[in-house]
Amino acid sequence: MPVTRPVITLITDFGSTDAYVGAMKGVILSIEPGARIVDVSHDIPRGDVQHAAWVLSQSYPWFPNDSLHVVVVDPGVGGARRPILVSTENHFFLAPDNGVLSWVYRREELYGAWELTEAEFFRKPVAMTFHGRDIFAAVAGWMFKGLDSSRFGEPIEDHAGLSRFEIPVPAEIRPKVWKGCILHADRFGNLLTNLTTREVPLDETGLPAAQLIKTRAGEFRQVSRCYEEGDPGTPSLVLGGTGFYEIAVRNESAAAALGLSRGNEVAVLVKSEFKEFTPEEQDRSFLI
Amino acid sequence: MPVTRPVITLITDFGSTDAYVGAMKGVILSIEPGARIVDVSHDIPRGDVQHAAWVLSQSYPWFPNDSLHVVVVDPGVGGARRPILVSTENHFFLAPDNGVLSWVYRREELYGAWELTEAEFFRKPVAMTFHGRDIFAAVAGWMFKGLDSSRFGEPIEDHAGLSRFEIPVPAEIRPKVWKGCILHADRFGNLLTNLTTREVPLDETGLPAAQLIKTRAGEFRQVSRCYEEGDPGTPSLVLGGTGFYEIAVRNESAAAALGLSRGNEVAVLVKSEFKEFTPEEQDRSFLI
Amino acid sequence: MPVTRPVITLITDFGSTDAYVGAMKGVILSIEPGARIVDVSHDIPRGDVQHAAWVLSQSYPWFPNDSLHVVVVDPGVGGARRPILVSTENHFFLAPDNGVLSWVYRREELYGAWELTEAEFFRKPVAMTFHGRDIFAAVAGWMFKGLDSSRFGEPIEDHAGLSRFEIPVPAEIRPKVWKGCILHADRFGNLLTNLTTREVPLDETGLPAAQLIKTRAGEFRQVSRCYEEGDPGTPSLVLGGTGFYEIAVRNESAAAALGLSRGNEVAVLVKSEFKEFTPEEQDRSFLI
Repeated sequence: MPVTRPVITLITDFGSTDAYVGAMKGVILSIEPGARIVDVSHDIPRGDVQHAAWVLSQSYPWFPNDSLHVVVVDPGVGGARRPILVSTENHFFLAPDNGVLSWVYRREELYGAWELTEAEFFRKPVAMTFHGRDIFAAVAGWMFKGLDSSRFGEPIEDHAGLSRFEIPVPAEIRPKVWKGCILHADRFGNLLTNLTTREVPLDETGLPAAQLIKTRAGEFRQVSRCYEEGDPGTPSLVLGGTGFYEIAVRNESAAAALGLSRGNEVAVLVKSEFKEFTPEEQDRSFLI
Repeated sequence: MPVTRPVITLITDFGSTDAYVGAMKGVILSIEPGARIVDVSHDIPRGDVQHAAWVLSQSYPWFPNDSLHVVVVDPGVGGARRPILVSTENHFFLAPDNGVLSWVYRREELYGAWELTEAEFFRKPVAMTFHGRDIFAAVAGWMFKGLDSSRFGEPIEDHAGLSRFEIPVPAEIRPKVWKGCILHADRFGNLLTNLTTREVPLDETGLPAAQLIKTRAGEFRQVSRCYEEGDPGTPSLVLGGTGFYEIAVRNESAAAALGLSRGNEVAVLVKSEFKEFTPEEQDRSFLI
Repeated sequence: MPVTRPVITLITDFGSTDAYVGAMKGVILSIEPGARIVDVSHDIPRGDVQHAAWVLSQSYPWFPNDSLHVVVVDPGVGGARRPILVSTENHFFLAPDNGVLSWVYRREELYGAWELTEAEFFRKPVAMTFHGRDIFAAVAGWMFKGLDSSRFGEPIEDHAGLSRFEIPVPAEIRPKVWKGCILHADRFGNLLTNLTTREVPLDETGLPAAQLIKTRAGEFRQVSRCYEEGDPGTPSLVLGGTGFYEIAVRNESAAAALGLSRGNEVAVLVKSEFKEFTPEEQDRSFLI
């Protein structure tokens, strides 16, 4: 018995000055007029698969179970990459097989994956330059109606063969010294790292138990519970709403102030037993 | 008996390249899958509480009674400012207590105000850097279900103690001379002032009864009924759709052409009995 | 018997930093709380009627029959141009009579056109500077309820008198040489032309049967089935999802790389019988 999905979320790099997003919404609604469409972002930087993967990773978990997430950041549209449908315990994903689901693969157990091959569910003729409309939106409309995932194409058995990029993992390069990197700079210029409370715990007052933070832009020691706590003009380590630590400068863009961006390294010297290291213990040259 | 709100409107400074808006929508829909969410703006300049207050003031009155308006422009998130719920005769507001409701307080009688303290309605753990998701969106979801406002926290009795910024009021600095200021420059570069038909009436032909308009960028005399009436290249005084007078330059940005922005002063010499002043009567030095 | 429209789409140049879009949505929902509003674009360049007409042309056909499309790019608001309602076989349009429906007129048979004169359906008083809210959104709300088009004003019998701009048509300036022009540069910098497979067929392998493409930026011969096929750094002719040929540069903005924009000419030498011309046959000077 078909069940209706609660919502279709959209993430694209189509911007807001063209008709591409409108065309996708129109195709979905023409197939299923009752579809509930939620805009997450259409301003992913052009072709930036890593950025899109990040935005997906920070939005899909919050939606109701059985939501369908459509991600069309697809510079290889019409080429060799496959259009795919992926299901996990609680969510469905429609996307090109170009790595944009890398965070999903890291976090979730895959229940199934299919290559979208059943052309009866496509808008035809399929434009080789606009699968967002002719394949992904069309299949999304049919999925919202509750059609079973297996209807849309051949199962992909080799889950390990699904395209993905490497998500950097923090490493303890010395006792109490964690090296991570910047995953994302957000609109506010906050620099989101891949470090979490697994690497750097909060102390009993809720402050990050970090003694020293180093980047190629220099080092700092300030830690804060929230953006407002930091001293203006100086960077601070703050636990962000994503669960990852951020480098922030109060009322400023840390990205601009420090000249850092995605991929740059960050090292954190963790306080031992929440006590400060002695000067002798502290080695400031831990960061390569 | 719970009643459903008609709509939840969203105003944030989260931009369109991150997942923050998506996370808020997901939290709302996870709590109440039937919630109707309307995007008003997510591109408030970062942390610009006055800008957000203005956009709220120009949008909420048009929505159906019992609508819920969520405003998350919140540079002090996690700090001392309180997350609050405010109700008026026809609307509900969820926002940080940082002044973003100043226009609401000026216009509306407050029916009630509550500090959001009932953690059972929050998403937990509450991130100190993302109350938009963990407090405001979560409470919005519950409110959409129709829970009574009093369920979400302690009533705030001291309405005068709610944070607000001063909204400048026009002053009649001489007979027939009103001094106001620019409240907002919009996307078109129109300069919206705080002057209304209470200060500067329309004449019998629908034209602003202004004889002379002065700003620090100089003076002009052109008045128009609509943008298209103005002579290209010269500023004109036009009654805007907000009820406030605007300085506009036809097919151009008045803000750019005149170098004016929010807070700059504007003085208007009102026509007496809709007759021009004589040269002797006219004193062009009325603007400080 | 009133029938409900499936959806109201919105195209405006109001941007995302002001309350204008929110005010329109509020007015629609105040009249018809069940209205389904779909954002197509609010970032049309200010006052750019041609751009808006293009975005409309590429979005409305995908929406369900009986959808209502509201286009408010209206630099002449309050002036002589009429606010109109136009119906075609499958769609309804609310817009100023300023040419923004030019593509609709070219493509569709008009079933009816009305000047919006029935003030009982307007929000009052009507601001001469914001018909988007007071006329178009208000009428959209009433139309969504299913009121008959004839309720909103006087029929316009002279369909030829409806304002429109000339849409350039390709011309075969010599046998097998088509001259067209650029209709639109999209967010990716792809240059969409007015040439279709009627002028330049696809060969048996799906490649554009073009031997040479000339613009004022020079000439090129590369043709591709999709963006990814093109050699990086060199322009390529690709059939776009709109049905129009595009000049694209792989992973780059062709608009920036070639310095071309809307209105620039493009000439294409079509392969004869899908065979290459001999050097003697080929005349590279066909483009004026």
